[in-house]
Amino acid sequence: MQHIVLTGDRPTGPLHLGHYFGSLANRVALQDTYPMYVLIADYQVITDRDRPGDIQRNVTGLLLDYLAVGLDPAKVTIFRHSAIPELNQLMLPFLSLVSVAELSRNPTVKDEIAHSSQRAVNGLMFTYPVHQAADILFCKGTLVPVGRDQLPHVEMTRLVARRFNERYGEVFPEPEAMLSDGSLVKGLDGGKMSKSRGNAIPLSAGEDETAALIRKARTDSERLITFDEQARPEVANLLTLASLCLGRPPRELADEIGYGGAAALKRLVTDAVNDFLRPIRRRRREHTEEEVHAALAEGNRRARERAITTLDEVRAAMKF
Amino acid sequence: MQHIVLTGDRPTGPLHLGHYFGSLANRVALQDTYPMYVLIADYQVITDRDRPGDIQRNVTGLLLDYLAVGLDPAKVTIFRHSAIPELNQLMLPFLSLVSVAELSRNPTVKDEIAHSSQRAVNGLMFTYPVHQAADILFCKGTLVPVGRDQLPHVEMTRLVARRFNERYGEVFPEPEAMLSDGSLVKGLDGGKMSKSRGNAIPLSAGEDETAALIRKARTDSERLITFDEQARPEVANLLTLASLCLGRPPRELADEIGYGGAAALKRLVTDAVNDFLRPIRRRRREHTEEEVHAALAEGNRRARERAITTLDEVRAAMKF
Repeated sequence: MQHIVLTGDRPTGPLHLGHYFGSLANRVALQDTYPMYVLIADYQVITDRDRPGDIQRNVTGLLLDYLAVGLDPAKVTIFRHSAIPELNQLMLPFLSLVSVAELSRNPTVKDEIAHSSQRAVNGLMFTYPVHQAADILFCKGTLVPVGRDQLPHVEMTRLVARRFNERYGEVFPEPEAMLSDGSLVKGLDGGKMSKSRGNAIPLSAGEDETAALIRKARTDSERLITFDEQARPEVANLLTLASLCLGRPPRELADEIGYGGAAALKRLVTDAVNDFLRPIRRRRREHTEEEVHAALAEGNRRARERAITTLDEVRAAMKF
Repeated sequence: MQHIVLTGDRPTGPLHLGHYFGSLANRVALQDTYPMYVLIADYQVITDRDRPGDIQRNVTGLLLDYLAVGLDPAKVTIFRHSAIPELNQLMLPFLSLVSVAELSRNPTVKDEIAHSSQRAVNGLMFTYPVHQAADILFCKGTLVPVGRDQLPHVEMTRLVARRFNERYGEVFPEPEAMLSDGSLVKGLDGGKMSKSRGNAIPLSAGEDETAALIRKARTDSERLITFDEQARPEVANLLTLASLCLGRPPRELADEIGYGGAAALKRLVTDAVNDFLRPIRRRRREHTEEEVHAALAEGNRRARERAITTLDEVRAAMKF
């Protein structure tokens, strides 16, 4: 089957190694096989915070990260959903297909609400799964790489597609989730790697900054380094990180370090990460802001063309 | 103050005399004084019913009714909100300004839910007041003629405008409601005149059809016709209808009929209504479908131009 892939990020800050091994590497691999849309979900930023922050800077940073890791704007369509009114309009017919009870039950929304710093849940957060259905269906996406926590969103999208087709005739495919193991690399404190937890290694960090971050990583006082995910999760996580960067098994790296302790482990990880990221960081510096904004403008144009066609089909199906 | 007026209808069927005296006459009077946008709220049709019905026919009928009563498309901008993606996109930032609790409390939505034939409240109904805020604010409407039951929607729009301005800087006016007495003319059964209750006299009805409708109107068996809204509401309502059509006081008409009873009353009302509607119905027949669709296309174009400007301002204010 000829899939169409929809994936993307919220522009809330720099991408990090967790993103790289959890999803970016996969996107780069997929871009030669399938048409792909990469969404910069700027409206999602205001679902759980009052102010969008320095969104222009974050969008530019995201684009630089994309180009640096090897996403090719000639192959993939990179766009901001706020730039595509016809995509956003799909939210209106889609909202009519979903009950308030169904919206209330969405576990991802429940979870996001629990982690939100806001006092009250706003209407954009509450209806976000329907907006995400518009993000996926505007381009008739059929394959959506997601972490396990995002599965209910894809389920909602399938529900919307199915109900629309039942009511108005066949317009949308029911997209499939492509599960990625987002927890492959954990943060430097052993928790989920996340910008907001300060436990992440940004792709764009300098080499000294990277070294400093890894120096502060949690380990244990055992001198003999072993790979034991159950008993020594922090040490195992650092070994996994080095393993991914070097393309070598983590146990082999542990054996090599032997009785070198945490200090030797961290030196090895630092070198592995910096060596691995060096070409990515170099490419990141080589791209100008003008270049990335031109890529975005072209992506927005292509996405909009696609959205106009889909909205026309939706209007025709609804006999509007 | 130079007001901008926003008003409109759901395209669910022909307009009737209740609409005429409750709002259309007022629009025709206002169109020479203020810029006015007349919204055909087609998405609202699917808030409380599963299928949009024959929406094209209803839209054409609505346009014919507008032109027949004297709305001048050179002066007023008549548009369908489904044709204006940039208007609909405003719903996204606006949803982020309103809490789910506030949406749940909206009395008009509560009421519409109670009267809805649907088993479950859908997301479009639930968020409708925010979409209505987009309908009003896209053109920076400052004056919104509404019935008393619509006041909470205007309050929600004021809230959205205020919060947007507080958070992102001054972009929107806080519109005022212009209360119209929608209950001036009741239906032929004494209840609210409404298409769905079958108690309405459509502007487009034929003269015989009008006579038949009025013949079936509820009255009483008292031969002496008097104007007494408390004791004889149905008779008073027919007298009011004739009074509005003839421009003469209802008591004067009652005196004239004297002991003629319900039959004489209904003859007088039928003649008054048919005489009053004759020029409107003639104009309705004189307009072609092509003509009204050209008027709508031009209105959509103007409304869209306005929406694009407003969305650009919104993006700039949000630093998107």
